[in-house]
Amino acid sequence: MGNKEKSLAKIFKYLDNHEQTYVERLREAVAIQSVSAWVHKSSELLRIVEWTRDHLEKLGAQCQLINVDSKHPPDGSAFVCPPVLFGDLGTDARKKTVLVYGHLDVQPASKSDGWLTEPFDLIEKDDKLYGRGATDDKGPVVAWINIIEAFKKTDTELPVNLKFVFEAMEESGSEGLDELLYEKKDTWLANVDYVCICDNYWVGCKTPCITYGLRGLCYFLVEVICAKQDLHSGGYGGNVHEAMTDLIYLLDQLVDSKGKILIPGIYDQVAPLTEQERQHYSTIDFNVEEFRRSVGTSALLQKTKEDLLMHRWRYPSLSIHGIEGDFNEPGAKTVIPCKVTGKFSIRLVPNQEPSTVEQLVIKYLNNLHEARNSPNYLQVQPHHNGRPWLSDFNNKNFVAGREAVKRVYGCEPDLTREGGSIPITLVLQECTGKNVMLLAMGAGDDMAHSQNEKIDKRNYFLGTKVLGAYLFEIAEQ
Amino acid sequence: MGNKEKSLAKIFKYLDNHEQTYVERLREAVAIQSVSAWVHKSSELLRIVEWTRDHLEKLGAQCQLINVDSKHPPDGSAFVCPPVLFGDLGTDARKKTVLVYGHLDVQPASKSDGWLTEPFDLIEKDDKLYGRGATDDKGPVVAWINIIEAFKKTDTELPVNLKFVFEAMEESGSEGLDELLYEKKDTWLANVDYVCICDNYWVGCKTPCITYGLRGLCYFLVEVICAKQDLHSGGYGGNVHEAMTDLIYLLDQLVDSKGKILIPGIYDQVAPLTEQERQHYSTIDFNVEEFRRSVGTSALLQKTKEDLLMHRWRYPSLSIHGIEGDFNEPGAKTVIPCKVTGKFSIRLVPNQEPSTVEQLVIKYLNNLHEARNSPNYLQVQPHHNGRPWLSDFNNKNFVAGREAVKRVYGCEPDLTREGGSIPITLVLQECTGKNVMLLAMGAGDDMAHSQNEKIDKRNYFLGTKVLGAYLFEIAEQ
Repeated sequence: MGNKEKSLAKIFKYLDNHEQTYVERLREAVAIQSVSAWVHKSSELLRIVEWTRDHLEKLGAQCQLINVDSKHPPDGSAFVCPPVLFGDLGTDARKKTVLVYGHLDVQPASKSDGWLTEPFDLIEKDDKLYGRGATDDKGPVVAWINIIEAFKKTDTELPVNLKFVFEAMEESGSEGLDELLYEKKDTWLANVDYVCICDNYWVGCKTPCITYGLRGLCYFLVEVICAKQDLHSGGYGGNVHEAMTDLIYLLDQLVDSKGKILIPGIYDQVAPLTEQERQHYSTIDFNVEEFRRSVGTSALLQKTKEDLLMHRWRYPSLSIHGIEGDFNEPGAKTVIPCKVTGKFSIRLVPNQEPSTVEQLVIKYLNNLHEARNSPNYLQVQPHHNGRPWLSDFNNKNFVAGREAVKRVYGCEPDLTREGGSIPITLVLQECTGKNVMLLAMGAGDDMAHSQNEKIDKRNYFLGTKVLGAYLFEIAEQ
Repeated sequence: MGNKEKSLAKIFKYLDNHEQTYVERLREAVAIQSVSAWVHKSSELLRIVEWTRDHLEKLGAQCQLINVDSKHPPDGSAFVCPPVLFGDLGTDARKKTVLVYGHLDVQPASKSDGWLTEPFDLIEKDDKLYGRGATDDKGPVVAWINIIEAFKKTDTELPVNLKFVFEAMEESGSEGLDELLYEKKDTWLANVDYVCICDNYWVGCKTPCITYGLRGLCYFLVEVICAKQDLHSGGYGGNVHEAMTDLIYLLDQLVDSKGKILIPGIYDQVAPLTEQERQHYSTIDFNVEEFRRSVGTSALLQKTKEDLLMHRWRYPSLSIHGIEGDFNEPGAKTVIPCKVTGKFSIRLVPNQEPSTVEQLVIKYLNNLHEARNSPNYLQVQPHHNGRPWLSDFNNKNFVAGREAVKRVYGCEPDLTREGGSIPITLVLQECTGKNVMLLAMGAGDDMAHSQNEKIDKRNYFLGTKVLGAYLFEIAEQ
């Protein structure tokens, strides 16, 4: 048994013996309500950053909290943008340097949204750990802490140098982070060899995945104002061009019942499909029936595995998320809202450019509004965006990741793309000039961003082992 | 100077001397957060009912709180429907009996909606009293208390018997009240001679109004479900028939940019316009420019006074109030909401029947959804309704009201209709078989149901005098 084998055996044994510690550590992280969209709770964002720093420093890392240049606080003047956590563990020039990225903030959640349990209390049930952030992305970040601790506690030398970038604004557009990273391009980031991000999910629930592609995103706010204050629909209904009517009209012109986006030119930049790419989708372990059932619908927009995967991974999609400013409480209110803001986003794919998409959307909606001849004020505003990303899964980074997964799970991972956006992926690729790999930890039914988010204990514990194996494999590449 | 004149002079003088008392009394009433749509605050509804009862009993009225047969609590099991306050003041068989109706509940309000001051703190500024319910309908109810107190304190015999019906569920459909009143048709209501309701507003801000017509209402909930829980738009966008897309489509088929309702057959029952009726609109004191400015828009749906009034009073209109269940908070969330409920209402006019309108709407939306071929669940549900109402402004009741206004304000009131719904009007007309008059107290810019609702002190104080004068006038008819 070689040195690597011995070390890994020792580390894996240690991990097996400390599973409850890792559950408790994740529980602590989940309990911090670091929702970056909640402007009134920005102190929780700082708390989770400091919590993570304290753990890393205890393990020997050199940490720095760096404030971003926050030009656009999401709302309200009280909001304070949390600093980004930069960490260094090891500076041995003979070793490869792996940059690890993760995020500490989470999507909004409350029991009234339909959670079966308190979203910020980690609940263990049927070998699953339920809680906001359990899989997106606190579980994976805590797994990094766990594995480094295991190296330390077993007196195993880390086979690589590690660098960490952990932020707490990912779910709200990573305000200012890009600029910060580009500034460090030729300094702190200069000696990075590989980048590893654990912030996505398997396609299904059985086969591990490593991900080489992501969709991008353009998020839009469409504001319509019809009056200087809300109006009684009895006294004004029939006399006033209502903001809601105009907004609903605009939102209805975005996408048809088949999921086709109606904005002219939106598909022009989409990369053509090659036969080779088409065939790759057939190899992916993806159960259409299981996916349909997990949604809870009688019919999806596509029927075959290949079509479903392509519309999730390599074609753009448009979702309308909601309207702010209307009457959205239970019960009935006969109000004409004076100012309403529609929110929708488009998932981008290679080779769509956010700036082009934004121009198309703004022009389209403004033209529609003008043609409608409404006196109401319209403002179409891009909120945040991220470009799509596509990598090379034959790069050494991916080879190391694939070996690590094979060792821990005993099978080859599926090489997948993701429908979601992790804009930082492309930024880290550009700032380091190196390969970025997305090492998925959670399962396909983890329900990130939704009610009852969870991570399977198996994925959390084996995923931690994969990180350890990956560090050895990448050192050998 | 006759007896009536002497008494009125004495009462008016008393009123003039106690204006601050009346402000304080209204302040107390406004401070009770009796929002009938807030299911978690139903205790406040009971509080305002008891507060009013205590005042009336102190003035010698016999009061009863009667529970309604509440079949459909608006939401949540904790909600307790408040009782209706029935009061009797005087049973002299030689006198006429006037039934007074008012409501003690208010529309939702919070500072975050855009109120400049706390909505439940009555704020006095520039001779206006700001606060939720100040004009709709606590001001008028408190004015009745004030005038009766003035009769009592000046030892003036009431020229009529009074009966009161004060409820606290008006803004949420007056749950169960109709049934209660129909039950009392041949008993408690049998000897009513006239009905007076103060729950509406002048058309403008200068000329007092007495109102002989109201629009009705059909309120609808349109629920669409696409999944068993909210979904991440990255992982599911492009594969799922989204509930928001279907709902937005349906809502967009309701009304066009000119305010025309698109539901087939919806105009069939609308009463034809006679030349006489058309001419009446020209006599109304209504300033188009002032109205436009009060809305804060550069253009209304109609240009002339007559067209504006007709579309407000005698043609139906449709308003989309909002969507429940979508992402409606500030910030950005990339969610596909699983269940969304659109809310809209149609203002009805003579001779539209709610049941017919409901059938047309349900059929129309269901047909549209079926044609769209979406797998999503749709339920179109009527929430509450009220028929339109039209009275005879030459009835003795109106003559007394017009005389009273003339005495206090020194001018003839405009005879108007209202765009809003006060469903109880028709019920009281039917239960008593007698004429119902709407004696408007507040001004046209009072912003009932909106932010910064107010009543002008002038309207509150002179309106109280009108009530006193009316009681003398009606006794003489």
